[in-house]
Amino acid sequence: MNNNTITSPRGFLAAGMRCGIKKSGKPDLALLVCPSGAKTTAVFTTNKIVSAAVTVSKEHIKSPEICTVVVNSGNANTCTGQAGIKNAITMCAKTAYFVKREAYLERHTKYERRETKEEGRNVLVASTGIIGKQLPIKKIVAGISKAAENLSASSKAGLDFAKAIMTTDTKPKQAVRRLEISGKKITIAGAVKGAGMIAPNMATTLCFITTDAAMTKPLLARALKTAIDNSLNKLTVDGHQSTNDTAIILASGLAGNRSIVSRCPRYKKFAGALVDLCDDLVKQMALDAEGATRMFKVVVKGAATKADATRASRAIADYPLVKCAVGGGDPNWGRIICAVGSAGVKLNPNKLSCKLGDITVFKNGAPKKFDAKRASKIVSQTEHTIAVDLGAGKQSDFCYGCDLSAEYVTINADYHT
Amino acid sequence: MNNNTITSPRGFLAAGMRCGIKKSGKPDLALLVCPSGAKTTAVFTTNKIVSAAVTVSKEHIKSPEICTVVVNSGNANTCTGQAGIKNAITMCAKTAYFVKREAYLERHTKYERRETKEEGRNVLVASTGIIGKQLPIKKIVAGISKAAENLSASSKAGLDFAKAIMTTDTKPKQAVRRLEISGKKITIAGAVKGAGMIAPNMATTLCFITTDAAMTKPLLARALKTAIDNSLNKLTVDGHQSTNDTAIILASGLAGNRSIVSRCPRYKKFAGALVDLCDDLVKQMALDAEGATRMFKVVVKGAATKADATRASRAIADYPLVKCAVGGGDPNWGRIICAVGSAGVKLNPNKLSCKLGDITVFKNGAPKKFDAKRASKIVSQTEHTIAVDLGAGKQSDFCYGCDLSAEYVTINADYHT
Repeated sequence: MNNNTITSPRGFLAAGMRCGIKKSGKPDLALLVCPSGAKTTAVFTTNKIVSAAVTVSKEHIKSPEICTVVVNSGNANTCTGQAGIKNAITMCAKTAYFVKREAYLERHTKYERRETKEEGRNVLVASTGIIGKQLPIKKIVAGISKAAENLSASSKAGLDFAKAIMTTDTKPKQAVRRLEISGKKITIAGAVKGAGMIAPNMATTLCFITTDAAMTKPLLARALKTAIDNSLNKLTVDGHQSTNDTAIILASGLAGNRSIVSRCPRYKKFAGALVDLCDDLVKQMALDAEGATRMFKVVVKGAATKADATRASRAIADYPLVKCAVGGGDPNWGRIICAVGSAGVKLNPNKLSCKLGDITVFKNGAPKKFDAKRASKIVSQTEHTIAVDLGAGKQSDFCYGCDLSAEYVTINADYHT
Repeated sequence: MNNNTITSPRGFLAAGMRCGIKKSGKPDLALLVCPSGAKTTAVFTTNKIVSAAVTVSKEHIKSPEICTVVVNSGNANTCTGQAGIKNAITMCAKTAYFVKREAYLERHTKYERRETKEEGRNVLVASTGIIGKQLPIKKIVAGISKAAENLSASSKAGLDFAKAIMTTDTKPKQAVRRLEISGKKITIAGAVKGAGMIAPNMATTLCFITTDAAMTKPLLARALKTAIDNSLNKLTVDGHQSTNDTAIILASGLAGNRSIVSRCPRYKKFAGALVDLCDDLVKQMALDAEGATRMFKVVVKGAATKADATRASRAIADYPLVKCAVGGGDPNWGRIICAVGSAGVKLNPNKLSCKLGDITVFKNGAPKKFDAKRASKIVSQTEHTIAVDLGAGKQSDFCYGCDLSAEYVTINADYHT
């Protein structure tokens, strides 16, 4: 069986397990390691209040030698003050220590205790879960020790990782892309967690990507940013960006391709595959958003500016009444027009048009007769497209959204207690 | 029994009845008339897509002699093109005609048919309901004729009006304030409809206010704008402004007070009572929002600018995860901080603080221990206050919100079909 997890590219070990943060007893600690060393780059939330994990990782990402990531779920380590920062640093330091011990034990039988504070700077940390509670750091450190022992390149280890980063996700979300660059087989793999608290810039919550491609770090950073901008940053579930959003890519360079050093066709091939992978992941996220049963793509064209197109598409995807209508399989296009009208974008009311799938429901400012049953069928699909023409220019953009269900409310009414 | 409806100020007649727009058979047509003539002013939605009723009323409001308002519920007359405009004009013209016929019949027994097109310009029209369907204009015209026959100054007629403007509202929403100005008894009364599609600027959906105070039209306009800005424009139910929002005030001037002609203490007394009346109405709207079980007030202080305070308070009140938590009686303050952080406002993370009612849950960037049971009790009240200090300046503002319940979703999943 193919390994379709984040351990599928050459050079990666992963682990995922239970350390006791979650009362449910579900897995809540994960490790990802590239023992041979990796080029690593990341993007973080732009929320002004960030997790201690984000604060610490933003500092650590400056280190040139990052090849390890530690993740916990069940606790966001956000709004936790200085104690939270200290815990995030401890997670990194202990991860560096235990991973090194394991690597040593493979070759020797005895291990000398070493200071780990400096080495912790080579580790990134990500957290997700409830805000405002201190981490149970002792449990987590014990968990890291055990996880380090279990590090493996197996597909089971990759799947364990994807499971251990989940919060209200109902299933692990993974994707893999295989391509050939200058005669060498390249693999890119990703795992995400995300359900609720998802909105563009950035829609990721947590996203981890591995590849064995060889390329420079600036190009890797560029490819990651492009991919996130065109996929995960296009998804809105409830219009808010979390305090913990983090996307990390590690490139082991073990595929053996001549290193990509410019924005040549080889780079474009890699970057295209990365966008495609992220698009796959984002769709999995949309369909597994809290309580979501279906997703939709909003395409806005005819905008005066790109920013208007972005804003209008997001206004539609975020509008609760549109989301409810999609949930009910109801072709209630009036709510789409209402959302566009209040989005604060330039539009021509006499040219404004709207399509649900291939059915034109509103054209040049006036309603069109349409087959309501067929329209309802389109809206009830797992995925459909809402297309709006603002009639005000030539710019366009898109956005992904999902329906709002009564289950979303139930999940979020009592997450805390 | 006191008349506490919009017919309580001297000089007003109202009617509300069923004309057959709503399949449910509930009342859907209302008239409000000030036969002696009124000073009339209005504010309208800023949505770029507006109802034909708004387009026509914006034109008619320029007429100096408006003393009649016609309202239908069950159909918004929005996205209905030129046919919709024609129907809105017909509603005004027929209202002018039938109201005049009734006034004539009171004094005479025979009535000569007169051209009504010009007189229609003295009538305002408001519509609310489903978007994108043409009005059943014949039914409406027949309804206007019958409603004109039933015009009355009774409290029953006022209540009928308040009922006939409802859509998914579960009860009529009315308020009255009585005050004395220069020894004369003044009455201000209002009726609103609003549930869902409510967001600041303006939060009114439909709002009708009557008073017998005598004052100049510019001062009346100023008092209305101040009142709406400080009450109904502070409410957000689902973050979107409707295509039909309209607030109208008619002043008969029959109270006998010396006309208010400047921003003197008498004006301030009147304007204060009007704000108070609108605040009463907005709270009724919040608690009767679609599926809402409780409301909350968000007070943001310590902002660098007034705009930041407004934006942050609204971001909290609009955040689905906060709304769900309130619905669940869950003191999940982390979501409040998350909403503030992504609101795009200036804040000092080390001074950021948050209170639920009188309990400090987060102070100077760090969580505080608190009695979770007591906090849950506060959040479970019909109304509670969330206070946030951004620690970035001296400006403040507030906003009203309500919880998001599974019922909201159910109501809105299948409103169309």
